Amino acid sequence: MAGSTYGTLFRITTWGESHGSALGVVIDGCPAGLPLSESDVQSFLDRRKPGCSKYSTPRQETDKAEILSGIFEGKTTGTPISILVKNLDQRSRDYGRIKNCYRPGHADFTFDAKYGFRDYRGGGRSSGRETIGRVAAGAVAAKILCRLGIRLTTYTRSIGDITVPENCFDLSCIGDNALCMPSVSYAEKAASYLEDCMRNHDSAGGIIECRIDGIPAGIGEPVFDKLDASLSKAIMSIGAVKGVEIGDGFLAAKSSGSTNNDSFYSKDGCIHKKTNHSGGILGGISDGQAILVRAAVKPTPSIAREQETVTADGENTSISITGRHDPVIVPRAVVVVEAMAALTIADMLMVNMSSRLSSLETFYL
Amino acid sequence: MAGSTYGTLFRITTWGESHGSALGVVIDGCPAGLPLSESDVQSFLDRRKPGCSKYSTPRQETDKAEILSGIFEGKTTGTPISILVKNLDQRSRDYGRIKNCYRPGHADFTFDAKYGFRDYRGGGRSSGRETIGRVAAGAVAAKILCRLGIRLTTYTRSIGDITVPENCFDLSCIGDNALCMPSVSYAEKAASYLEDCMRNHDSAGGIIECRIDGIPAGIGEPVFDKLDASLSKAIMSIGAVKGVEIGDGFLAAKSSGSTNNDSFYSKDGCIHKKTNHSGGILGGISDGQAILVRAAVKPTPSIAREQETVTADGENTSISITGRHDPVIVPRAVVVVEAMAALTIADMLMVNMSSRLSSLETFYL
Amino acid sequence: MAGSTYGTLFRITTWGESHGSALGVVIDGCPAGLPLSESDVQSFLDRRKPGCSKYSTPRQETDKAEILSGIFEGKTTGTPISILVKNLDQRSRDYGRIKNCYRPGHADFTFDAKYGFRDYRGGGRSSGRETIGRVAAGAVAAKILCRLGIRLTTYTRSIGDITVPENCFDLSCIGDNALCMPSVSYAEKAASYLEDCMRNHDSAGGIIECRIDGIPAGIGEPVFDKLDASLSKAIMSIGAVKGVEIGDGFLAAKSSGSTNNDSFYSKDGCIHKKTNHSGGILGGISDGQAILVRAAVKPTPSIAREQETVTADGENTSISITGRHDPVIVPRAVVVVEAMAALTIADMLMVNMSSRLSSLETFYL
Amino acid sequence: MAGSTYGTLFRITTWGESHGSALGVVIDGCPAGLPLSESDVQSFLDRRKPGCSKYSTPRQETDKAEILSGIFEGKTTGTPISILVKNLDQRSRDYGRIKNCYRPGHADFTFDAKYGFRDYRGGGRSSGRETIGRVAAGAVAAKILCRLGIRLTTYTRSIGDITVPENCFDLSCIGDNALCMPSVSYAEKAASYLEDCMRNHDSAGGIIECRIDGIPAGIGEPVFDKLDASLSKAIMSIGAVKGVEIGDGFLAAKSSGSTNNDSFYSKDGCIHKKTNHSGGILGGISDGQAILVRAAVKPTPSIAREQETVTADGENTSISITGRHDPVIVPRAVVVVEAMAALTIADMLMVNMSSRLSSLETFYL
Repeated sequence: MAGSTYGTLFRITTWGESHGSALGVVIDGCPAGLPLSESDVQSFLDRRKPGCSKYSTPRQETDKAEILSGIFEGKTTGTPISILVKNLDQRSRDYGRIKNCYRPGHADFTFDAKYGFRDYRGGGRSSGRETIGRVAAGAVAAKILCRLGIRLTTYTRSIGDITVPENCFDLSCIGDNALCMPSVSYAEKAASYLEDCMRNHDSAGGIIECRIDGIPAGIGEPVFDKLDASLSKAIMSIGAVKGVEIGDGFLAAKSSGSTNNDSFYSKDGCIHKKTNHSGGILGGISDGQAILVRAAVKPTPSIAREQETVTADGENTSISITGRHDPVIVPRAVVVVEAMAALTIADMLMVNMSSRLSSLETFYL
Repeated sequence: MAGSTYGTLFRITTWGESHGSALGVVIDGCPAGLPLSESDVQSFLDRRKPGCSKYSTPRQETDKAEILSGIFEGKTTGTPISILVKNLDQRSRDYGRIKNCYRPGHADFTFDAKYGFRDYRGGGRSSGRETIGRVAAGAVAAKILCRLGIRLTTYTRSIGDITVPENCFDLSCIGDNALCMPSVSYAEKAASYLEDCMRNHDSAGGIIECRIDGIPAGIGEPVFDKLDASLSKAIMSIGAVKGVEIGDGFLAAKSSGSTNNDSFYSKDGCIHKKTNHSGGILGGISDGQAILVRAAVKPTPSIAREQETVTADGENTSISITGRHDPVIVPRAVVVVEAMAALTIADMLMVNMSSRLSSLETFYL
Repeated sequence: MAGSTYGTLFRITTWGESHGSALGVVIDGCPAGLPLSESDVQSFLDRRKPGCSKYSTPRQETDKAEILSGIFEGKTTGTPISILVKNLDQRSRDYGRIKNCYRPGHADFTFDAKYGFRDYRGGGRSSGRETIGRVAAGAVAAKILCRLGIRLTTYTRSIGDITVPENCFDLSCIGDNALCMPSVSYAEKAASYLEDCMRNHDSAGGIIECRIDGIPAGIGEPVFDKLDASLSKAIMSIGAVKGVEIGDGFLAAKSSGSTNNDSFYSKDGCIHKKTNHSGGILGGISDGQAILVRAAVKPTPSIAREQETVTADGENTSISITGRHDPVIVPRAVVVVEAMAALTIADMLMVNMSSRLSSLETFYL
Repeated sequence: MAGSTYGTLFRITTWGESHGSALGVVIDGCPAGLPLSESDVQSFLDRRKPGCSKYSTPRQETDKAEILSGIFEGKTTGTPISILVKNLDQRSRDYGRIKNCYRPGHADFTFDAKYGFRDYRGGGRSSGRETIGRVAAGAVAAKILCRLGIRLTTYTRSIGDITVPENCFDLSCIGDNALCMPSVSYAEKAASYLEDCMRNHDSAGGIIECRIDGIPAGIGEPVFDKLDASLSKAIMSIGAVKGVEIGDGFLAAKSSGSTNNDSFYSKDGCIHKKTNHSGGILGGISDGQAILVRAAVKPTPSIAREQETVTADGENTSISITGRHDPVIVPRAVVVVEAMAALTIADMLMVNMSSRLSSLETFYL
């Protein structure tokens, strides 16, 4: 089924496997007239590139984006933008162990259950490399948002049980530490936590937070396609994500109405909120405040420690996964969360344009 | 835009406002041959009916389902099933206060921002009554699942900070307490917590948990339409939900790979998992274990306590919301969560049927 | 499957059977702020109402539209508009003959082949009454188009081999003759042709033409969702339609490039075409000229004459269909064609709004 | 907007321009387990390749298909199949004339009207080369159909006013003549008709017919997604198509019910029809007989003869289009029609699998 497509008007279709010849994305519905070059895409891809720190797989990939269509004289034409990234580091090696047995925490077993067989090389389509297409497309969406004054800030909020408290935030340092945390000191704590993990042949998870500023009030559809519902799907569709929160999220469940409700006030002719427990969304529609989304990322399932499992033939066995793997995928997933958020917002901004008859009249008359 | 439709092959479209003449749903794509009567639908609707306990609004609604199409000689025909529920208790009253000012925590402001005006009577389309169509359709989806050996169990896991611990679960008592909790004693604690809330003119939130047993391995699509991504959207699209978890959810972010990975083992020719941290889903595809989804529900925004806000004209003012309101909506939302889960699973089971060429060959040759 | 929904942003879902209690439509995505009353819808429904002339079934139906949601203070709110039409004339009668045998030219056999059984009362969902929902929704779409200066003119071009030549067109008389022809004298010829048919216990088909004026250049999507492709699907989805043409249609296949190409010319700063062989569409996108669509409608399959057929059990037999049937359905299908065209144009106008980045910038900045 | 995607479960997304670096398609939802190689795709692409006869453009393109994903060990994996075809013959030349003026019969003007500017090199996305992705994907769909015993036969029925009469059909010779006609002698007549056209610096159109054998009864959805409606959209979405017919098509409009109805009869336990005026579809659902679709193709708009037109600045001018162009595109469009039909049928076969509850029970229990 067509599960590799996302979006209504700004729509992307991704393709490619971990060890195929290439991966890519087709962006359909990008508005005409956006200045776009390969370097715009590359800057996003570089944020998820492996091999940049000791916390990411040493697999060497340049992940260089090639734009094959949809651009003319430096601008988007309105027709599909096809972006391709070649797989370079497909070193020939022995997949025998993975081939015949199901790695715990991976999709090996479920792919076999669904399709009857699978491309076992590096996880195939269920590999984290699948996100390359999302990130490339997210770069384009983010550029549109930027033109409309909408900015996304995404960072690692927690690694394991090391959480950056809000009053320690220094957003300027996110790009400066290998863990993408908004605090140098907490990044150091998290690094030492990760060293322990690695010494124990184990791995860690964490929480990613995305903040979207500048989005006007009124974006989102009221029932099934609520802005928060769409963001949830977008972000939960990223491989290792196991939970999503908007605003206060699970904390809201313990709160009271008098605390959780955000009071409105008026100033200089504009309506604001005194607090933002709602995370910028009310009734599925943006309320003009910053949107806050949080994603829980599970620990990397590939660990060197020996684990019990079964073979495809149903024999009990054990496996220890060696090779190139991130001890934590959170930092590299930061840009994936940002990309999925940008894609969702761009699409819903476009869908929203026909909400009022007066808009159609202004546009066409 | 078309945000009132949900599903790919099993597709529902809901309509109706809090104080319109009726609400309803059209189910398109229900397989032919399912025995179905109005009482099947009614039993689900009765679970969300107001007026059943002191924790729910005293608004009197029988919420009686009428099936207008799609059934012949007691069975579904494969054509759209239209279900209608009339609004009876639309007492004429003064909406002046709500009409002109934005209730904190509600969608009044965002609807105005989007559409330019709104049906202010009882929240209009953003009212909790919008879920009637979802629940009616969910009853049909659940009946299909039941035929396939798939059972959903949904309950209140927490009210405020009263959480039922897993080792105290008594699933048999869910239907016996007004709060739908799987423990009589915790339901009593939660009741006393709610009494306090009500005395303080305040409201409470909570957590709903849904467990789906009997789903075969292999259901779900690998990339954007992952089973967990689809469930997240479905459940986050319910009015007051602010967070969604699959399996261990946010706890997984603090776990380690060696703990969080579920080991496989083989017994009697079948593959099982020793634990179920993944909540029954790996790589977006069901792994044959029970699926576990959790929803964080915010406190009811309508509270009698005075709150600061603004008028539609941008003047600062205050409001205290009197009238018929639930101090907690969690117990009535339990069946809504179950309905959305059932709709998602039914749809993905249908979509999955064409995953293998051999299935098409068996079907058509 | 979800085959009862049509449209991307302006989306309708129809439901109901010939002999169920009611039929209807849910319109989702209608822009907020459109003045709309039941009489707007009724005026369209009255154009397809049976019992108005001797060329249509004497079945007595008032086909009165009730709007159940989506309107507040006389205007659309942006939320779903549910419209319901009750079936009054469901006279209890003996369906024994139709129940067990397949009427030639009808969908009895194919519904059984697909679903395993069928609602045999009056054709069930395959009845022409299914178009009620389309026409009701089409009235809303046409009202939007009217606000944007777009007008649809639809009429019977041919009945059997009686075709109104273009040089005899008098569009003002379309509403004045029972056959909806744009010529009183040709309507008389067609009437006498139909008298012959009826005397022979036979039926006739014909051609419906729809002309859409005032549509701006630039509407439609370039590849699969071309404006002409979408119109073709919309119109071919009407029960008895067997062919669709745009502009010169099949005549273009016999023409030469030098004749078929429409020359452009410039006048008063606007670009026009000297001819309109293309029917107002080039490359799937409107060219600013009138759009011309033509639909071939087959003869009514229900005829009193005896026909050979089989029973559901596979026995050879014969059948002659008595009862209430139109000898020609073309005149009643005129408004159905207009409705489907209006729905398509309204949807594509909305989709088109995000084609250029500059439009987003104008809208949001 | 997302107009470059087609299909519900078997879904394709095409991309690429006439003079970009490559064109391609992503096929999502292809069932796992289909043996597939590049040569399967190549055999279809070769049927639309330019440069094979004097009736097609001498542009030299090998149009070699590369499969980049979705295949493992020679079989489809169920994940997206990305196919890429490089553009080789992008000779650098002067587009000055086309750049500034609108070619009659082409989409130059309408693309500008929609997007504000366009890739003028060879028509960009509106070029016939856009069909490469359709044809590559159609090869995959056709291979699935072949496995299910469904065969498509597509040929040129007419060129200009030379039509092959049904009683002269020799299907075996379709591949043997440059015009893909099912008759050697009519192909010769058509060839001489084309010689005249070319001498006159003019071009010709024609009619393509596609016949689909072996499709079981019961395929198609009853209302908007009728099998004939979907086929119409699919085929009308091909660049130069201006009309579509199913079965008798426009002839049915002149027929009578007694003639046009196909009588059923039973033989050896199977239900057949004595005639096939319906073209294998009743009520939007296949009736088990051969499906017949016909497409009217307009004359190639690019002609050397001088034509009046305007510049983008609105000045009246004239143009004569020299360069590499087919005097008739019908023969090369034959495989495009076949591809679109195959894609539609494959998708609807998959969608149909969940029509009955008993099918779900058989599949899952």
